[in-house]
Amino acid sequence: MIRLITVATNQQGLYDITSRVNELVSTSGLQSGLCTLFIQHTSASLIIQESYDPSAKADLESWLNRLVPELDPLYSHTLEGDDDMPAHIKSTLTATSLAVPFMDQRLALGTWQGVYLWEHRHAGGRRNLVVHLGA
Amino acid sequence: MIRLITVATNQQGLYDITSRVNELVSTSGLQSGLCTLFIQHTSASLIIQESYDPSAKADLESWLNRLVPELDPLYSHTLEGDDDMPAHIKSTLTATSLAVPFMDQRLALGTWQGVYLWEHRHAGGRRNLVVHLGA
Amino acid sequence: MIRLITVATNQQGLYDITSRVNELVSTSGLQSGLCTLFIQHTSASLIIQESYDPSAKADLESWLNRLVPELDPLYSHTLEGDDDMPAHIKSTLTATSLAVPFMDQRLALGTWQGVYLWEHRHAGGRRNLVVHLGA
Repeated sequence: MIRLITVATNQQGLYDITSRVNELVSTSGLQSGLCTLFIQHTSASLIIQESYDPSAKADLESWLNRLVPELDPLYSHTLEGDDDMPAHIKSTLTATSLAVPFMDQRLALGTWQGVYLWEHRHAGGRRNLVVHLGA
Repeated sequence: MIRLITVATNQQGLYDITSRVNELVSTSGLQSGLCTLFIQHTSASLIIQESYDPSAKADLESWLNRLVPELDPLYSHTLEGDDDMPAHIKSTLTATSLAVPFMDQRLALGTWQGVYLWEHRHAGGRRNLVVHLGA
Repeated sequence: MIRLITVATNQQGLYDITSRVNELVSTSGLQSGLCTLFIQHTSASLIIQESYDPSAKADLESWLNRLVPELDPLYSHTLEGDDDMPAHIKSTLTATSLAVPFMDQRLALGTWQGVYLWEHRHAGGRRNLVVHLGA
């Protein structure tokens, strides 16, 4: 079974999509199985991260921004903006697809885990996810 | 079908879980299919790596420790210890979920591939994995 | 259902395998489902990246080559060549498995997305992929 999610982003950063994915799981009619998320973009990505302390997410963003800075003289792909090539690299270092088992109609996440869409462009936009649910 | 694995770790490093996963596969009753591993933590992760030469694993750990050092002044998330924020970053750069097809009741790994849990905290702990097996 | 793909590579770089994977999907007999790719190597990997502008791919390769250079004095695993340990690290930072949903007998990729095998060795070789297709 395939479902679609659209997430509206308006700036760089982590967007918690845990409850939206759990809603798909709980209304799927399946008791347990595997939920696979796929993001249809190369300048935004997916991660599972700590959901409890916002400072962990802030540090994660700062660290990746420092590792993959804008205006790096190495880049030749610059026509789409200073944040475009860093966005492709960040997307490659994180995940385009993510699989999470579910049990009792809920994602089998650890206590402190959340599912995040990571927007890597400054302006953001409409981000489309394809979600596969299987028994 | 969903199975649980707990791995006890006591220090940073790569823990080979190939045989434990293969055991789940061989006793699943399924001849072939897809085995998806999910780790319920954000300070330990999963990778497939070379299983033959221990020096490759040692270099991999040293390299990642150098890329993501402790005591980086960038970190604000420091309450849980010096190794906590590096652990979250390392987890993000590697994998929280991993899918491996299986055939003839065995993971379809390459000759030199092993499945590893990568503990990123110094003290380690009990690490829980959720394993989904599907036809 | 499991299918095998072999990709011949002859140098470092990104090899577009989108059409080969789509061919497996379209001849599977399944209308929609999940296609999971697994590469049986630890010195080549998988990514989804922008397929439109070749400069994005070139920058991505240059960036990763700079992050993970050859002849780093940190490496002890050097017997298999100067490009071997960097290849393992690059493989770890990208993906060994990748899951893409499909609909109407085609991968549900975004407009600009392509599926790539990333060869990290200079000489390349025969790279084997195991592809799982499920409803």
